[in-house]
Amino acid sequence: MSHKYIIIVGCGRLGTILVNRLSRLGHSIVIIDKDTGAFEGLSSDFSGFTIGGDAAESSVLQNAKINKADMFYALTNNDNTNLMLAQIAKDIYKVPFVIARVNDPQRDIVYKNLNINTICPIIIAADELIKRTEG
Amino acid sequence: MSHKYIIIVGCGRLGTILVNRLSRLGHSIVIIDKDTGAFEGLSSDFSGFTIGGDAAESSVLQNAKINKADMFYALTNNDNTNLMLAQIAKDIYKVPFVIARVNDPQRDIVYKNLNINTICPIIIAADELIKRTEG
Repeated sequence: MSHKYIIIVGCGRLGTILVNRLSRLGHSIVIIDKDTGAFEGLSSDFSGFTIGGDAAESSVLQNAKINKADMFYALTNNDNTNLMLAQIAKDIYKVPFVIARVNDPQRDIVYKNLNINTICPIIIAADELIKRTEG
Repeated sequence: MSHKYIIIVGCGRLGTILVNRLSRLGHSIVIIDKDTGAFEGLSSDFSGFTIGGDAAESSVLQNAKINKADMFYALTNNDNTNLMLAQIAKDIYKVPFVIARVNDPQRDIVYKNLNINTICPIIIAADELIKRTEG
């Protein structure tokens, strides 16, 4: 494993669990959320930075040193926000590895057509359930 | 693949995508939801049965022929409902294979301690993101 600098937007359930695990794996993390109360779920040994603010504002992303990021994960509950943030990170700041969370499975294809890497928890869960059904 | 009789409760995003895929794979499906409008997302070639009703009522489960089910998936958006339904299916009706959806990752351990098989889309998504980060 190589050490990576990762920016994550959205400290909901997925963001929180991921940040805690990535931080424990030794990666450098910046987590951004509009609601600073969302950071309360971070574990006490989280060693990264938190930024309370709107990631759609370029000052917030610059504050997060996005130009140095190896990875950028847009994990908010809003699909449009995630798509927009992923495009900004990819096209404007040239972050090498970008993923957008897709909450609505029907939109997953649309994002893929836009050449945005996605993660759709519902589709992955369905894949897993199919596997367990057939297994 | 062997043909299975599967009862699914909750026709939300996960239930819908799963039912459509399992039906296409040739399994016999009964999908139950309180809100019959939820069935509108089922594909036109869905060949199973839909039941509009509250699965917590034994008449609804009996109507679904739960005593013949090979598998029972509780996939509503409510963790308590899913846990209760899974316990009913497992302990009262002796369904051989039961899974409860867990929306709150922190409850996953609790369910496992109760010996209920779970699927938590958020935990699976986090696992997948860790894999992609490290990969």
